[in-house]
Amino acid sequence: MASHEIELHGHIIDSLILPRIWDTIMRASATFQVQEMHIGVSATEPSHARMTVSAATQAALDDLLGDLEQLGAEIVGAPDAQTHVVEQDGVLPDDFYATTNLPTDVRVAGEWLPVADIEMDVAIIIDPATLAARCLPMHQVRVGDAVVVGHGGIRVHPLERTRATEDVFSFMQNSVSSERSKGLVIADIAREMRAAHGRGGKILLVLGPAVVHTGARRYVAELIALGYVQVIFAGNAVAAHDTEAAMFGTSLGVDLQTGDPVQDGHRHHLRAINAVRRLGGLRAAVAAGVVTEGIIAEAIRHDVELVLAGSIRDDGPIPDVITDMIVAQERMRAAARGVDVALMLASMLHGIATGNLLPATVRTVVVDINPAVVTKLADRGTTQAIGLVTDTELFLRELVEHLRD
Amino acid sequence: MASHEIELHGHIIDSLILPRIWDTIMRASATFQVQEMHIGVSATEPSHARMTVSAATQAALDDLLGDLEQLGAEIVGAPDAQTHVVEQDGVLPDDFYATTNLPTDVRVAGEWLPVADIEMDVAIIIDPATLAARCLPMHQVRVGDAVVVGHGGIRVHPLERTRATEDVFSFMQNSVSSERSKGLVIADIAREMRAAHGRGGKILLVLGPAVVHTGARRYVAELIALGYVQVIFAGNAVAAHDTEAAMFGTSLGVDLQTGDPVQDGHRHHLRAINAVRRLGGLRAAVAAGVVTEGIIAEAIRHDVELVLAGSIRDDGPIPDVITDMIVAQERMRAAARGVDVALMLASMLHGIATGNLLPATVRTVVVDINPAVVTKLADRGTTQAIGLVTDTELFLRELVEHLRD
Amino acid sequence: MASHEIELHGHIIDSLILPRIWDTIMRASATFQVQEMHIGVSATEPSHARMTVSAATQAALDDLLGDLEQLGAEIVGAPDAQTHVVEQDGVLPDDFYATTNLPTDVRVAGEWLPVADIEMDVAIIIDPATLAARCLPMHQVRVGDAVVVGHGGIRVHPLERTRATEDVFSFMQNSVSSERSKGLVIADIAREMRAAHGRGGKILLVLGPAVVHTGARRYVAELIALGYVQVIFAGNAVAAHDTEAAMFGTSLGVDLQTGDPVQDGHRHHLRAINAVRRLGGLRAAVAAGVVTEGIIAEAIRHDVELVLAGSIRDDGPIPDVITDMIVAQERMRAAARGVDVALMLASMLHGIATGNLLPATVRTVVVDINPAVVTKLADRGTTQAIGLVTDTELFLRELVEHLRD
Amino acid sequence: MASHEIELHGHIIDSLILPRIWDTIMRASATFQVQEMHIGVSATEPSHARMTVSAATQAALDDLLGDLEQLGAEIVGAPDAQTHVVEQDGVLPDDFYATTNLPTDVRVAGEWLPVADIEMDVAIIIDPATLAARCLPMHQVRVGDAVVVGHGGIRVHPLERTRATEDVFSFMQNSVSSERSKGLVIADIAREMRAAHGRGGKILLVLGPAVVHTGARRYVAELIALGYVQVIFAGNAVAAHDTEAAMFGTSLGVDLQTGDPVQDGHRHHLRAINAVRRLGGLRAAVAAGVVTEGIIAEAIRHDVELVLAGSIRDDGPIPDVITDMIVAQERMRAAARGVDVALMLASMLHGIATGNLLPATVRTVVVDINPAVVTKLADRGTTQAIGLVTDTELFLRELVEHLRD
Repeated sequence: MASHEIELHGHIIDSLILPRIWDTIMRASATFQVQEMHIGVSATEPSHARMTVSAATQAALDDLLGDLEQLGAEIVGAPDAQTHVVEQDGVLPDDFYATTNLPTDVRVAGEWLPVADIEMDVAIIIDPATLAARCLPMHQVRVGDAVVVGHGGIRVHPLERTRATEDVFSFMQNSVSSERSKGLVIADIAREMRAAHGRGGKILLVLGPAVVHTGARRYVAELIALGYVQVIFAGNAVAAHDTEAAMFGTSLGVDLQTGDPVQDGHRHHLRAINAVRRLGGLRAAVAAGVVTEGIIAEAIRHDVELVLAGSIRDDGPIPDVITDMIVAQERMRAAARGVDVALMLASMLHGIATGNLLPATVRTVVVDINPAVVTKLADRGTTQAIGLVTDTELFLRELVEHLRD
Repeated sequence: MASHEIELHGHIIDSLILPRIWDTIMRASATFQVQEMHIGVSATEPSHARMTVSAATQAALDDLLGDLEQLGAEIVGAPDAQTHVVEQDGVLPDDFYATTNLPTDVRVAGEWLPVADIEMDVAIIIDPATLAARCLPMHQVRVGDAVVVGHGGIRVHPLERTRATEDVFSFMQNSVSSERSKGLVIADIAREMRAAHGRGGKILLVLGPAVVHTGARRYVAELIALGYVQVIFAGNAVAAHDTEAAMFGTSLGVDLQTGDPVQDGHRHHLRAINAVRRLGGLRAAVAAGVVTEGIIAEAIRHDVELVLAGSIRDDGPIPDVITDMIVAQERMRAAARGVDVALMLASMLHGIATGNLLPATVRTVVVDINPAVVTKLADRGTTQAIGLVTDTELFLRELVEHLRD
Repeated sequence: MASHEIELHGHIIDSLILPRIWDTIMRASATFQVQEMHIGVSATEPSHARMTVSAATQAALDDLLGDLEQLGAEIVGAPDAQTHVVEQDGVLPDDFYATTNLPTDVRVAGEWLPVADIEMDVAIIIDPATLAARCLPMHQVRVGDAVVVGHGGIRVHPLERTRATEDVFSFMQNSVSSERSKGLVIADIAREMRAAHGRGGKILLVLGPAVVHTGARRYVAELIALGYVQVIFAGNAVAAHDTEAAMFGTSLGVDLQTGDPVQDGHRHHLRAINAVRRLGGLRAAVAAGVVTEGIIAEAIRHDVELVLAGSIRDDGPIPDVITDMIVAQERMRAAARGVDVALMLASMLHGIATGNLLPATVRTVVVDINPAVVTKLADRGTTQAIGLVTDTELFLRELVEHLRD
Repeated sequence: MASHEIELHGHIIDSLILPRIWDTIMRASATFQVQEMHIGVSATEPSHARMTVSAATQAALDDLLGDLEQLGAEIVGAPDAQTHVVEQDGVLPDDFYATTNLPTDVRVAGEWLPVADIEMDVAIIIDPATLAARCLPMHQVRVGDAVVVGHGGIRVHPLERTRATEDVFSFMQNSVSSERSKGLVIADIAREMRAAHGRGGKILLVLGPAVVHTGARRYVAELIALGYVQVIFAGNAVAAHDTEAAMFGTSLGVDLQTGDPVQDGHRHHLRAINAVRRLGGLRAAVAAGVVTEGIIAEAIRHDVELVLAGSIRDDGPIPDVITDMIVAQERMRAAARGVDVALMLASMLHGIATGNLLPATVRTVVVDINPAVVTKLADRGTTQAIGLVTDTELFLRELVEHLRD
């Protein structure tokens, strides 16, 4: 039987941190004994708890403590974080610590250092010279990097909820099903975007091709023109069909004015891609007046950072599309820094990839008509995400109405 | 080897009637020989075809001819329709003819009589005295009724499409997926409702409870006030939650102004039902000022025909809800007569029941966020149905905007 | 500011009762102060907590205490439950207490009485003569019945989980998504059914028509023959298509041996219904040798209690189908008493109706290929339910394989 | 008014080619006049039709003729196919002809040449020296290539159905819904795989990660061992989780034996990827005994061609994963040549990419629990595809049972 003491601080009851700690201990067939517990009386006074956790073996206890740490428990008497040195480029030490997407500290030389560029499922590198800690994905580590291993000396800060405040991006928000009023939520999202815009925050749009097929591209273009978009992540299809729409008035060969398929229209997107390839890229196509309106044209005119990441489904592709996945991830990673609000609209592949990169602190809205996609994207850990099972076209129409005036 | 001649008249190519006939013959492992074929050259000139169908046995041929008849083929030299007399109340002769929902004639005394009150899967009764034919569901036949049996002397008129016209309720319309622009289709539906309204046609709404839960009840109430609703089919839940919303501002305990669940709110619908029971019914509740706004209040004020059909899920129920299914079907059947346009909104059970009763000539719109429901409701035979996979709340909001001015 | 003391006993941490209490208090913008807390150290030792809850007004506090009571809190110094007398048949007093589906006691003359026949959303009637309490749905109360009102003197027992045990019907079980192994879960369910069978427990099957259309009726028939089914709830469609399959080898006109639609097959179910109507019912049809195999035949031969509840979609209907919803609910209510394990298979309407009637203590399995249906049926309060998003046909095939030997 | 004559040969009625031609003409608001029509009397005798198509303008007629050509019409008096020369690497002439996935001929020097390597949405290159025609995707064309442009001199062969034969991969097969018996279809698929195996045909599996998460990897491994798999397309996730399962017995941290999440399990797939990276690749990991069983191990042991194509969602990735999308498409394209039967199992991204590359003549089975995915994958043009809405785990279990003995 092995035992160790843990401590919890902050809004541990309001944020359900304490119950989760207990639940995790019990699921692990371990036990706990509360040594001390102070519960904040007022809405803003934090609580505090100290307890001893016991498991059958030291190994089981270590694994459990690792899990509790991720939930915000502090391991009493934590030593400095241990590091091992990388011995092969792109390969981590066996026992490397894999991050969550929550704010994280590591203990180095007795001090807690915040980990920069936090994202999920990557390693933490410590620079002993500068006493700085930062995240690095597996394939980027180089021989000699000091990688944090094991669970000791790591502290994770769960998102907290205080009794005092609650907003639309609330903690542990369930997805908004199609059976709840979306009108209210859309108004809240508009308010949040306006606030982010006001404080100079970056807004990210992740777009799937249905945004173009449904004709909702005009709402996205308007959002850009209104200044509510700083970064766009999308794929070849969004760029191809938006260009097709600008050149031929169709998307996948369907006339966006009438909803009818046009003669020979199934070739339009190929012709659009070919035209952009001839000119060398989207910026040139806009400059040449070949693409005069739509998402791409507005994004280029308003200096929106546009990251187009390819996939094996792509026709063409358009020259601006990054065909190497590692390069694309790096570009997305860089562009995601500093994002304040993210909207994922009818996009599964790019939405999941973005979800992998964003810290839990980014306020995220997921919109899709398929409940499975919303669940997959909105329920990733304790993020500040709202999932809406609704029609992206009608969602965007109503969102723009709120932001227009 | 048995053979028989069939004839086809009308827009048999434009309406794909001829190809379907051929396809059905081949699927039955039978053969055909075209004797004569004239294809209309202009858009309005009808075509004509005569061919001999051959099958391995007379029984197989008879079954096949029955199927071809349903597709619009005329059996050459058709005798009068045969009838058998009902010998037991509510029980049909073994070989009774089961109807389609398409316009149908029966041959009596050498004359083709139109069948009144056509709907799917019922029997045809002939009154020899008045030379009238009409539909009757199985449980309504009485001893002595003359029921059409076999396939002879029956003629079905498929919905036709001419090369000249095409509208939104087009023939063989596929469902509109969430990946197509709904804005265009909603405008078309509004136009169609305006036209039906203009010519004094009845508009039927079939409502599911999500219309209340999402707060879209205010759009339905507005549609009623604008005069665009003559008949409503719904269940106990719609009435209960609409009443709950009028009395408590909640639906299933969720505040419709804030989207948050309210304290003790899960009991609100029971209290609402109980209040209506105390007063004796919905009309009394509106009169007493207990229910002042919403779908029910507007429907009662505007003399909308409101048929509330119960189900085994119901709490209460509200006194206006018909608890016997046979009675409910009869009420729905009667109220459905003369309906011009039907909108089925987020309703599966009542939508299917309504689809069973409506003739194929009624222009039907099916709206649901679940593609499976839309497919089930919109793809029932060759009806003039549009299926929209979209969010009912946002659909209604946009529809009302079109009809408001 | 109003305050009151509550107490919690039992496995309040393992079962997440304490955290839910806290969460509910905070969501209500109320506060609490822990007066005393003892946490069980061993897996079987229960815990205990006493705390003061404070809210802005007495009314808010009363509503909150009502909610906490439902979660298992005991209101300290609870008086006897208050009752009001029914003044109108089928109408409850305004402030009636609406039940949960959890085991419940009411305090009468200083004693805690268990409430018999517990189910969700009904009233509690107290018989002062016999000191007995039982549930009664709204429409069944009669003038003079003493109905429990308000929140005082009521105690609800949440389902508990101890650290010691955990089984497949685990507390707060999430639905099993299509992305998890179902093989393991099916084996567990078979084990559970075998155990229930061993201890003489009743097993209930709720069936939707897809069970027949997919040919899975043969597995259901085998389950019945093996003795694993005591009660069946279904609708007209299941009986009609099972009879159709027995008589014609088709379901909805599709040959169950080849999967192909047969000539004139869309009329088969009408002919089957008609044949049963002629004979007077299903029992007669089996006796007459018209229906020789399948779900209905086996159910009748093995004296399974078969409750067929109608709906407005029904053709016919078959004479055994109960067409009045109130009567059908009563028959289902009576048949559900004493059920140990319930399987809801590809049935939404009957599944929801059954879920409304069953106490939370019944172990329930919900199987459907549509995740929305599984969520709706499996996530109703704190029941012991497993939801499987899978193919009912293949589920039943594998389940029967486990139970066969 | 412009007119031109077209001819149709073969099983144009049985295969619905003639009706589609008519339908397309009418949708284009054009007209036709049948000049001659001979309909095959016996099941094997082909039919023949000649008709004049007229449209308002020559441009409209040309577009229409292009569409009719795709449906199998032969343009009477077709000249040789026209070609333009590529003037910029990776850029096609404006008016390039975009292929269908159907067998296609081009007319060169008065002769009809078959087009090699047919796939959808690519260009046709003619080598004047060898008189050979083949497909080339846009990005692969080089300066000087002779690309077919316009519609003249091209002949497409639609898939034909004769009255004589019909199999499970039937022409215009609708998807098999979850409401039809899958048992029958699975038996047919097994028979088809056995036949392909017998004649030395290649079988392709396209796999999504749910195949591993559900534990169905053991059935895939058995299929490989039985010799029924020659090519596998998958992504990083399948390889990572299959390796995780081999190393830790988990998939995404869930124990495949018990279905429970294991302590610290969410890091297992990262550790598995890291281990493979250390060794340099999957082949080395199998050789080193680190990966001893599962899909990857069996595939490597049985020399299955394994193409792992990356995406922006990937962790790691595993060294064998192709990170450049252009390279991955080329590898898939090459490996797809000669495939006889393709099974797409719970895979959307790789399934769509594969569907883009396969000729319509490949017999394709699409299995997914999500009807939207099945529709998207199975309904791409006139392919020989069966879509099954069912549970991939239970599908594979039953399929392997058929093929095992």
